[in-house]
Amino acid sequence: MKSVVIIGAGFGGLNAAQHLKNIPNLKVTCIDQRNHHLFQPLLYQVATAGLSPGDIATPIRSILGNVENTNIILGKIENISLPDKTIQGTFGSLKYDFLILACGSQTYYFNHPDWEEYALGLKTLEEATQIRQKILLAFEQAEIETDQKLKEALLTFIVIGGGPTGVEIAGAIAELSRNTLTQEFKNIDPKKSQVILIEGGSRILPSFPESLSTRALKDLRALGVTVYISSLVTRVTQNSITLKNGLEINAHNIIWAAGVGPSALNQSLGVPLDHQGRIIVQPDLSLKDYPEVFVVGDQASFTEKGKILPGLAPVAIQQGHHAAKNILRLSQNKQPLPFNYWDKGQLATIGRSLAVGEFKGIKFQGFFAWVAWLLIHIYYLIGFRNRILVLIQWAWSYVSFKRGVRLIVERKPLTSNHSKEE
Amino acid sequence: MKSVVIIGAGFGGLNAAQHLKNIPNLKVTCIDQRNHHLFQPLLYQVATAGLSPGDIATPIRSILGNVENTNIILGKIENISLPDKTIQGTFGSLKYDFLILACGSQTYYFNHPDWEEYALGLKTLEEATQIRQKILLAFEQAEIETDQKLKEALLTFIVIGGGPTGVEIAGAIAELSRNTLTQEFKNIDPKKSQVILIEGGSRILPSFPESLSTRALKDLRALGVTVYISSLVTRVTQNSITLKNGLEINAHNIIWAAGVGPSALNQSLGVPLDHQGRIIVQPDLSLKDYPEVFVVGDQASFTEKGKILPGLAPVAIQQGHHAAKNILRLSQNKQPLPFNYWDKGQLATIGRSLAVGEFKGIKFQGFFAWVAWLLIHIYYLIGFRNRILVLIQWAWSYVSFKRGVRLIVERKPLTSNHSKEE
Repeated sequence: MKSVVIIGAGFGGLNAAQHLKNIPNLKVTCIDQRNHHLFQPLLYQVATAGLSPGDIATPIRSILGNVENTNIILGKIENISLPDKTIQGTFGSLKYDFLILACGSQTYYFNHPDWEEYALGLKTLEEATQIRQKILLAFEQAEIETDQKLKEALLTFIVIGGGPTGVEIAGAIAELSRNTLTQEFKNIDPKKSQVILIEGGSRILPSFPESLSTRALKDLRALGVTVYISSLVTRVTQNSITLKNGLEINAHNIIWAAGVGPSALNQSLGVPLDHQGRIIVQPDLSLKDYPEVFVVGDQASFTEKGKILPGLAPVAIQQGHHAAKNILRLSQNKQPLPFNYWDKGQLATIGRSLAVGEFKGIKFQGFFAWVAWLLIHIYYLIGFRNRILVLIQWAWSYVSFKRGVRLIVERKPLTSNHSKEE
Repeated sequence: MKSVVIIGAGFGGLNAAQHLKNIPNLKVTCIDQRNHHLFQPLLYQVATAGLSPGDIATPIRSILGNVENTNIILGKIENISLPDKTIQGTFGSLKYDFLILACGSQTYYFNHPDWEEYALGLKTLEEATQIRQKILLAFEQAEIETDQKLKEALLTFIVIGGGPTGVEIAGAIAELSRNTLTQEFKNIDPKKSQVILIEGGSRILPSFPESLSTRALKDLRALGVTVYISSLVTRVTQNSITLKNGLEINAHNIIWAAGVGPSALNQSLGVPLDHQGRIIVQPDLSLKDYPEVFVVGDQASFTEKGKILPGLAPVAIQQGHHAAKNILRLSQNKQPLPFNYWDKGQLATIGRSLAVGEFKGIKFQGFFAWVAWLLIHIYYLIGFRNRILVLIQWAWSYVSFKRGVRLIVERKPLTSNHSKEE
């Protein structure tokens, strides 16, 4: 009986576990610090009150709990000793014969850890509900605020980072303010709120073909989003950001979509890391000196045709599957095989009926790309229940312009700057 | 132009506001400390992972936001001066011509405020998700716990209070452990977890006819719930409760459904309160010395045929409507009318296909009562979207025995009592 430990139940870890289901003579232990698999591509929908946290998260036990050879542990890793093949964590200590590291990535503020407090990241359900809370409270606070300058800052939403996440969340905030909330306030006009997307490079969606960046820019502007390109952020405070050119923008709501960084674990392993702190893997996804250890998804630095594969769900899914296959081969005394990425293209949604995508050099845009985006995301949502619910919520949002999950819970009370007398 | 202020957007306040929609010469301000109306009768479903918070909560603005004469304020009340007709709060200060108090009630621990820390109440979304978190974590912790006594305490769930809420949550926990989770763990058998319902009086569901109490008791026992009647709790600690007869039960999970108490505001108003701290109202729902102030729902103590009306949704709904009607009459210089409660009966659900109910002396039980319960709750759920979503989630839970919203978020890491070596 050989023991396989999988750390992380994201796209990579979960797919590895599913391919090791009920294989004779293999015992699988899947460890995660959360009890649910999170469908990260739709996290921005939770942050903008379009979907409930439960719609994009599936309990790991409901996916793998009834698999005979698979054990699930909710716990945090404290130490991994690769030479001893031992893992220590809040659950005690575990030995392994094979290890799959699938810990993903986390919000990363480059050399500005102090920005974390003001610019909210978007990698976990907690972060998404925090952003939702902040956005909704900003409108409520603006409704009772009498100081004009503060009111404007409350109604200014800045998204830092023009990749797919930044574009998606900026578009969704614009729709929330321009469609959903528009008639529900008496003292403010949510339509007049400012949504600003800031990108350091020369165009948004830099990983897409240039014509699609141009289309996305046009679509975002039509939605009411102000886009700044070639604009580096040099300072972030509670109520403002400053750009390299000196421009300071007052804004109460700052969202960070500018980058993810490595899992905190990587540094401690004593293995070669790339310039972004990801673990450099061999062509078969294993570690150079530890052929029994595989790294997949965002945590891995895998070079193909001179380029490192990006942190996308399809990469993690395919690598998780491949690592499981190689473990099977090793356990049968066969040689592991090199990994090849089957490029599934990329898609980014901008808003209602608006998206851009490319697949094998073919470009999509507008309504057709949006429908493709919708169908693909529904298809990949894990678990029958979530697919149906998300489909209905979307259908409902589409016909009604409403966003159903506008909940504010647990918070400090709002205060008006000047008390008012009516 | 007369100004009406409504405090609280529960069943009472919301219904009052809806009846004052777009009445000429009336300006309505609705103040709530949350941004959503909460459908409290289904809160136990959130606490047991059957529904998402968003399914039973509707943004107040999406209900009343586009009403011309109605203003919505998210804020907390700090002081009300009845003689000055003035309200102070986090939003500043407001004058009113008519006031409707609809602040509801809150979890109440009688003379044991220290129990609050260990015995979780169930009146808000925060409390419900806290209970959900605690229940789900208990199973996860039990899965890695090696100390047998601790493992048993983790798998013991105590519900204090045998009214409808207590019965509903005890039944739901029994179903969660016996149906949903049953095959998903390797080291524990969730079926062997203990669910204990403790009632101080001589029977559960004391407000129901005796034969229905007996039926509910039988149904609960069939689901695996242990019911203690005539059992007063004298002590609650983090990991145990003690009964008056000296029996001590070790349990990691303690839920408080034994009582609600008055809104904190009541004491400060200087008006007559009943023995439970509720505000005593006149036959027309107004205050004796303040005919322009009405109190409705759980906050009011209204005596009809020698009995104080219970804190039920239909009472609040009818009183909210009636208070609005009386304000309309007063503003037209007509006499206010006395309130009469149209008794809609009561229903309590025990589990899948199991409920009891009574209406005008007619008793229902079993599958028929359960279908009635389902239809009535779906019907009263505010907002089209929520109705459909809740219906689908329930249909899905019914055919699959699954509970979809089993999320654990933000928590301290689990630790095993003894670290284990595999």
